[in-house]
Amino acid sequence: MNADRLRDYMKKYELDVLVAATPENIMYTSGYWSLSQWTQLGTHVFTILSQENVRKPCLVVPIGEVDMVLDSPTMWVDDILPYSTFHMYVGEPLTESDRTLVQLRSKKNIPATGIEALTQTLKERNLDTCKLGIDEGYLSPQTFHQIKKCLPQVEIVEAYDLFREIRMVKTPEEIKLLRKSAEIDEMAISVALDFAQPGTTEEQLTREFNKTIVAHGAKPEFSVICFGNRSAYPGGLPTNKKLQKGDVIRFDVGCRYMFYNSDLARMGALGSVTDKHAKYYDAIRKGEERGIEELEPGVKASEIFHIIVDTVKKSGIPDFRRHHCGHGIGIEGYDLPLISPNDHTELEEGTVLCIEPPYYEIGFAGLQVEDTVVVTKKGVDFLSTLNREIRII
Amino acid sequence: MNADRLRDYMKKYELDVLVAATPENIMYTSGYWSLSQWTQLGTHVFTILSQENVRKPCLVVPIGEVDMVLDSPTMWVDDILPYSTFHMYVGEPLTESDRTLVQLRSKKNIPATGIEALTQTLKERNLDTCKLGIDEGYLSPQTFHQIKKCLPQVEIVEAYDLFREIRMVKTPEEIKLLRKSAEIDEMAISVALDFAQPGTTEEQLTREFNKTIVAHGAKPEFSVICFGNRSAYPGGLPTNKKLQKGDVIRFDVGCRYMFYNSDLARMGALGSVTDKHAKYYDAIRKGEERGIEELEPGVKASEIFHIIVDTVKKSGIPDFRRHHCGHGIGIEGYDLPLISPNDHTELEEGTVLCIEPPYYEIGFAGLQVEDTVVVTKKGVDFLSTLNREIRII
Repeated sequence: MNADRLRDYMKKYELDVLVAATPENIMYTSGYWSLSQWTQLGTHVFTILSQENVRKPCLVVPIGEVDMVLDSPTMWVDDILPYSTFHMYVGEPLTESDRTLVQLRSKKNIPATGIEALTQTLKERNLDTCKLGIDEGYLSPQTFHQIKKCLPQVEIVEAYDLFREIRMVKTPEEIKLLRKSAEIDEMAISVALDFAQPGTTEEQLTREFNKTIVAHGAKPEFSVICFGNRSAYPGGLPTNKKLQKGDVIRFDVGCRYMFYNSDLARMGALGSVTDKHAKYYDAIRKGEERGIEELEPGVKASEIFHIIVDTVKKSGIPDFRRHHCGHGIGIEGYDLPLISPNDHTELEEGTVLCIEPPYYEIGFAGLQVEDTVVVTKKGVDFLSTLNREIRII
Repeated sequence: MNADRLRDYMKKYELDVLVAATPENIMYTSGYWSLSQWTQLGTHVFTILSQENVRKPCLVVPIGEVDMVLDSPTMWVDDILPYSTFHMYVGEPLTESDRTLVQLRSKKNIPATGIEALTQTLKERNLDTCKLGIDEGYLSPQTFHQIKKCLPQVEIVEAYDLFREIRMVKTPEEIKLLRKSAEIDEMAISVALDFAQPGTTEEQLTREFNKTIVAHGAKPEFSVICFGNRSAYPGGLPTNKKLQKGDVIRFDVGCRYMFYNSDLARMGALGSVTDKHAKYYDAIRKGEERGIEELEPGVKASEIFHIIVDTVKKSGIPDFRRHHCGHGIGIEGYDLPLISPNDHTELEEGTVLCIEPPYYEIGFAGLQVEDTVVVTKKGVDFLSTLNREIRII
C-alpha cells in the first residue's frame, strides 16, 4: 500500500475516514484476501482507514477467517475486529500464532454482523461525525442503505473510484509482484508453444498453459488461446479445433501471482504466415513499441493512445481503429489509466501499464502483441521480456 | 436453467420481469460467463426474463464480448443485445458463426451503456410498467439508483435471494456438471496424496493438487491443504511447512468445472495417527454419514443439522458445537440451503448438498470429512465416492 498517496488523496477529497469493501481494495489496504468473499457472495470484510493514521488500519472480518488473516504472509494489520460465530476448540501445545488466534477469538461482545462491527467501531472511535468515503463496488444497495441508516451523522460518499486513483501508482513491492506475475505468464506462453504441434487442440494447449501457471504458484485468470481464423475472436474460448499448417496462434493471457495480475499477448504460427499476417503484425508491433517509447511521467494516456493509433496507421493498417490501446494493471486486471482518447490522466512514475493495439479481422485473424512496463523517471522499465517476433513452430 | 421453477417463483412473487446481473445468475439464465465481469469490476451484463416467456431470455452484453457469447458451448440465448464500442474488421472467408457475429455487430443504434441497453429494451418491449425483480448483488448503489430513475413507472424489487431460491433445485444437466466437478476434485486429492512424502511442503502439495485440477480442464477455486497442528486453521494457507511423521493432512478443497463448483474434504496422515485423532475423526464421520442417511425430500435443513450434531456428540466429541454442517452447492460455492439451526428450508428432489461437520482444535488438529450428494425421491445419490478413511501414507 502506498500510504502517503492514500493520505494525500484523503486530504484532497477531504475524507476523514476511508472504508475498503471490495476484495481488491481490502488486499491493497491490509494485505489480506478473504476466502469467504470468494466462496460466499456478499460476505462483508472492511478495512477502516482514518486520515490521521493511515498506516494503522483496522480490519473487520468474519471470525471464521481470523486464522487466515493471521496466517497470511502478506497481511500487515494489527487491529483485527472479528464478527459473527464460528466454533473452534483450544488444545495444546499452542504456537505463538495459535495464541494470537485464541486471544482474538476470546474478545468480549463480538458483533453478529459485519455492518454492526463496522458501524460500532466508527462510533467507539468517535469517527461517526465525519466525512467518510466508502468503497461501494461490492456493496448491495441494501447494505449501503443500512450503513447510512446506522450512521446518521456521517456524510458518506462513494469511494471505489478514489481507491482506483490511489492504486494507479505502484510501490516497489507491488512492481516486484507484477514482474513475477508477468514472468510466470511468459513462461507459460513459451512452454505452451514448445508443446504445440500439428493436431494439438486449443483445449490441450490451454491446459498446458494453465499447468505451467499453477506449477509456479500462480492462479490462471484468463487465457484466450485460439488458432487460425478463430484468433479473430477477442475473447475466444478454447475448443477442440486442431492446429494446422499455416495457422497463427494468438495468446492473450493472464495469471494472478500473490493477487497481482499479468496480461500479455504473443503470437505463434505453425509453419509460416502469409504476407498479410506479417505486414499487419509488423504494423501493430511498431505501434506498440512506439507507444512504449513515448511513455514518461507527465505524458497523458490519451496522447499515448493517439501516437499508437497513428503509428499503426502509417505502418501498414491505414484504416486502423481502436477504442483503447492499453490499461493499468495491478490487483485488478484493468487498473487506471485506460490508454484511450478520453482518458487524459497524466502518467506518474510507478504507473504500470499494459500496452496493446490488437487487430481483429473476422474471417482472417486476430493479431496482437502486449507488453507490461512500469513508468520510470526517464521512460520505462519492462516487466515482460519475451521476444516479440511471431514464433514459427 | 430450471425454467419451470423460475416461472413458478416469478408467479409466486408476482414478478412480470426478472433481470439477472451477477455472473452466477447470468450463467444460470443464459449459459454465458462474462470475461469482462471477471477482469473489469462493474462491467454490466444482464439477462432479461419475462414471466410470459422465460425460455426466451435476452442477453445484454458489451459488444466486445459478442464473440465469446456466440463461441460459448454452454450459451443458449438467441436474443443478444450488444452495447458500447469495440472495433473489429471483416475479411473472408466467413464461417456461420462469423456471419452471426458480423450481423449482430452491424445492428443499428447500439446503446452506449449497459444501463441504456437494459432500460431501452424494457421500454421497447412494453415492460416498463410492470413489477420487476433485479438481481442486485453485483450492482453498485449508484447503478441501482440510475436504473430506478430511468424506469419511473416500474416497481423494482431486489431479487438476488430469489435467484438463490430458484437455483437451489438442480436440473439433471447441472447435476452432471457437479458430479464431474466433484470427480476432478477427488482425483486431485488422490494424486496429491500419492505425491506426498516426508519433507513435502504444504505449498508443493497444493501445486500438485492444482496441476491435476487444470489438467482436467477445471479451475482451482480454493485449496486448504494443511499439515499437523496447522490443519486446525479452517482456511489455512499453504506454507513451506514440511510433512513429518505423525502429521495429519487436511484437504478442504474445491474446483470449478464449466462454472460448477465442488467442495470436498478428506484426511491423510504420514505413518500413523494418535488415538485421539482416530476417535474424533470417527465421531465426525459418523455424524456426516448419519446426516446423509436422513436426507430426503421434505426434511428440513435444520433437522439434518441437529441429527449431525447429536450424532457427533454421542460418538466421541460430547462438547461438539457447530454453526453449520453443510450447504448447497452449484454455480456458487455456497448455494441454498445452509444446514444450520435457523434454516428450515424443506429439502426437495434435486437439491445438491455438501455435508460436513468439521472439528477444529487449535494446537491439536482440524478433522474433516465432506461429501456431496443430490437429494433423490427416496434418499440421496452420491456425487463424491472417494474412500472416507484417513489415508495413511
